[in-house]
Amino acid sequence: MSAPSIFERDLARNAANYVPLSPLSFLRRAAAVYPDKLAVIHGSGRTTYAQLYERCRRLASALAARGVGQGDTVAVLAPNVPALLEAHYAVPMLGAVLNAINVRLDAKTVAFVLKHGEAKALIADTELAATTRDALAEGRSALLVVDYDDPQGPGGARCGTIEYEELLAEGDRSFAWSLPQDEWQAICLNYTSGTTGNPKGVVYHHRGAYLNAVGNLVTFGLDGATRYLWTLPMFHCNGWTFTWAVTAACGTHVCLRKVDPALIFPMIQEHRVTHLCGAPIVLNMLAHAPKEVKIAFDWPVKLATGGAAPPSTVIRKMEELGFEVQHLYGLTETYGPSAVCAWQDEWSELPLEERAAKMARQGVSLVTMEDTCVLDPATQEAVPADGETIGEIAHRGNTVMRGYLKNPEATQTAFAGGWYHTGDLAVVYPDGYIEVKDRSKDIIISGGENISSLEVEEVLYKHPKVMEAAVVARPDRTWGETPVAFVTLAEGKTAEAQDILDYCREHLAHFKVPKSVVFGVLPKTSTGKIQKYVLRDRAKET
Amino acid sequence: MSAPSIFERDLARNAANYVPLSPLSFLRRAAAVYPDKLAVIHGSGRTTYAQLYERCRRLASALAARGVGQGDTVAVLAPNVPALLEAHYAVPMLGAVLNAINVRLDAKTVAFVLKHGEAKALIADTELAATTRDALAEGRSALLVVDYDDPQGPGGARCGTIEYEELLAEGDRSFAWSLPQDEWQAICLNYTSGTTGNPKGVVYHHRGAYLNAVGNLVTFGLDGATRYLWTLPMFHCNGWTFTWAVTAACGTHVCLRKVDPALIFPMIQEHRVTHLCGAPIVLNMLAHAPKEVKIAFDWPVKLATGGAAPPSTVIRKMEELGFEVQHLYGLTETYGPSAVCAWQDEWSELPLEERAAKMARQGVSLVTMEDTCVLDPATQEAVPADGETIGEIAHRGNTVMRGYLKNPEATQTAFAGGWYHTGDLAVVYPDGYIEVKDRSKDIIISGGENISSLEVEEVLYKHPKVMEAAVVARPDRTWGETPVAFVTLAEGKTAEAQDILDYCREHLAHFKVPKSVVFGVLPKTSTGKIQKYVLRDRAKET
Repeated sequence: MSAPSIFERDLARNAANYVPLSPLSFLRRAAAVYPDKLAVIHGSGRTTYAQLYERCRRLASALAARGVGQGDTVAVLAPNVPALLEAHYAVPMLGAVLNAINVRLDAKTVAFVLKHGEAKALIADTELAATTRDALAEGRSALLVVDYDDPQGPGGARCGTIEYEELLAEGDRSFAWSLPQDEWQAICLNYTSGTTGNPKGVVYHHRGAYLNAVGNLVTFGLDGATRYLWTLPMFHCNGWTFTWAVTAACGTHVCLRKVDPALIFPMIQEHRVTHLCGAPIVLNMLAHAPKEVKIAFDWPVKLATGGAAPPSTVIRKMEELGFEVQHLYGLTETYGPSAVCAWQDEWSELPLEERAAKMARQGVSLVTMEDTCVLDPATQEAVPADGETIGEIAHRGNTVMRGYLKNPEATQTAFAGGWYHTGDLAVVYPDGYIEVKDRSKDIIISGGENISSLEVEEVLYKHPKVMEAAVVARPDRTWGETPVAFVTLAEGKTAEAQDILDYCREHLAHFKVPKSVVFGVLPKTSTGKIQKYVLRDRAKET
Repeated sequence: MSAPSIFERDLARNAANYVPLSPLSFLRRAAAVYPDKLAVIHGSGRTTYAQLYERCRRLASALAARGVGQGDTVAVLAPNVPALLEAHYAVPMLGAVLNAINVRLDAKTVAFVLKHGEAKALIADTELAATTRDALAEGRSALLVVDYDDPQGPGGARCGTIEYEELLAEGDRSFAWSLPQDEWQAICLNYTSGTTGNPKGVVYHHRGAYLNAVGNLVTFGLDGATRYLWTLPMFHCNGWTFTWAVTAACGTHVCLRKVDPALIFPMIQEHRVTHLCGAPIVLNMLAHAPKEVKIAFDWPVKLATGGAAPPSTVIRKMEELGFEVQHLYGLTETYGPSAVCAWQDEWSELPLEERAAKMARQGVSLVTMEDTCVLDPATQEAVPADGETIGEIAHRGNTVMRGYLKNPEATQTAFAGGWYHTGDLAVVYPDGYIEVKDRSKDIIISGGENISSLEVEEVLYKHPKVMEAAVVARPDRTWGETPVAFVTLAEGKTAEAQDILDYCREHLAHFKVPKSVVFGVLPKTSTGKIQKYVLRDRAKET
């Protein structure tokens, strides 16, 4: 090696020229530049950026006083309410890690998540009191439980030792928080619905959160005039990092406890909403809402969707309603959006069907994602861009997770060969745009939620009368996909479909319960593997 | 210390989840996503993003073949032409460092820069053949000299061994370049125009270039529809990093060899320019351009300016012409823009004078700059936000330079106490916005009172007959110092010194009124800054 160049002498990092990247900087700046600007709208509640910053510092301070510190996990079980948004700043202010839990999970899974993530505190919306109580009973660890008794919510029992606003009142509004020492430090923990039963804990870092927020800001065109309606759950990849992106843009967060067109249209109108996100189910709900619910608006409203491609009929209906649809692709492991079906000017001239076909593709890397590739599973080389050859989507970049918590094997598998392997099968078109063709892991996506077919099968297998079971997706106009169960009963046993469904309902979150049960012998390969592709065809006929 | 948290186990960086930040990624992505989109317009020349990427790879490849590698300096002496833009990508592709030299420098200074920066290659526009030849004669090092014989240029002698397009033809259009190993690696070397002694070499890194480009993109609102006119020299802080920001947005660069309103207005019209930047002198030139040159346009054109506050009369004239003026602040040491006078909605309602007074302030940190502070020189504590107490502007963040090349003392002084000290004196208003009052050496101390030369200049600029003005100190036996005004009158205007003084007396405290007025052209540095030290010498003779 030659001597270091002149540029490697006396030009080291110092406090003036190196600061860890963190989305916390966005809130500090927004509060400094726009203290009186509306940061959060929640029902009749209004919070300015100065107030939001104060509330976050209070929460951080109060949690610190109760022993929460660097590397500790703080879980939140809540819909899209200010407490969950505030936790996105307050928890990382302590160097602690936010674990936003899916409110649709059953108590048993919540208990698993709390235990696996080693949560030291839980903030739970009282609407979810039953789940919270059962999950706490299931687990054994003594954790600080904070009730969020939202005045805008339906109310519910308190399970904790203190109410959220009481906790905040304890805190210091000038709390001296600090940025992480290292931008690689963990900021969030998000559980996937894994294919093999237990969910995996995906770990995000400050650097990735900062960059994906910036990527979203640029891609979705947020700015100071943005009014962002929270139709996308904040517990989905931290709201695809829009929890931070909207603040980076100094826009306004409009909270929403429940995705309901009868609420959404009037809110778009009243608050002059400019941007919202949601799974295709949200588009479906809006598109199919009763006429009297649909309120016209005369400014452009951008709607980003992902998880499954929006069908052309839905695109048309949404455009007629005044929405501009943007199609994103991503996974929990990539902080939400990792790819975007970036618009090409010439598409504007295409007839709807052709345009929708272009838009249905998952597209290209987000500006902050370094690389998106479709790899031949055998060679791990990029497949030809022919629109036909199927391979696995792989990502490489700063907005890929650190890995799975306490699961080095799964982490290593996911990162084999220096790529993050998504498990999604896709083709690449000659223009470089990718399109997902299938899921290699048999995940069923229903209403924007991932359902692991294996998890449902596991429950079915536990039913005393079931011998064999397989669960596959059936296309569904409302939900995108729904699970259908194929069941072979044990010798000499009889059962009604309803028995099976009741059993599932007892042991699974409701959205995971199959919509139909079909009895009979399962088709198998010569090596004894169940032929799911045959079942998928059959499911369409049920 | 307690044991590392669960988040510090088995979650290390790897090739899939960590990539050095570099603006090179922007070009790679733009070429992949928008290969056929117009990347560069230069006279009658048109270059798509696929072609731009190919040309950059060719240049990198050809330079590599001639021995340029990591840590080597490649200098470019050219106006805003494609070759200079291409060098912004090709040179860093090799891990080499781009040194874009100010074309207004004299040969002796160019020779100093080439020698101090240890340039291994020089690409020089043939219009600058005289400077190039003299600089090469002055220096002694044998470096590769490449002539850029721009068909859009006026022509000129060749001083080198190969022409730019010939060099490119040697290169491999699929050259396998790589990102830097470390995002802290040097990407550019920019010499400041020191008013005394030799210029200092400011070193930028890939991380800062990436982040400042993103910050500019967000602040100036660039997107895929952007047509950016290159009125700001690319050799000024790499065009304030817009060389990379426009590409990040996948917009179009519109090159310009010469800042001339007679060229600029037709180009805005022809290419539907949406954004441009320039020092206040550019605004002045546009505002005072002859009527027949001014072409109206009916779409919003954003114009960012910095270096000195735009006077209200100039703002008004620019707005009447259809420009939206954005006021930025920054230095070579901060990659150009480090602060922005971020717009507050309520300003729109203010009368022009009040609005201009708000806009004249340097403002608040750019979204990618961590901290901007005004420090009391004595205590190094923040001054009170009272709009009166003067201190020194200091910055902290990832878009602060690595330091000065081969000058550890200057670097240490600049970074004393963990802040980058700008040397600009300012106040902080109660709303947190800063306003530059003067360079520390430009303050005039008269009879024990501080007089801000900028304040006096602001008044002079409002005089209807004044185009440019500068105020400096003259030693005075009685008062210590007194202010002297140097004034350039607008085209075709005449005025007596007494008119000017009367006007000042009306608008300023008497002790701030200049003692003399001198009419004539103002001496300027190569970067267009008024040379106050020359005026100080002249003032002594008046």
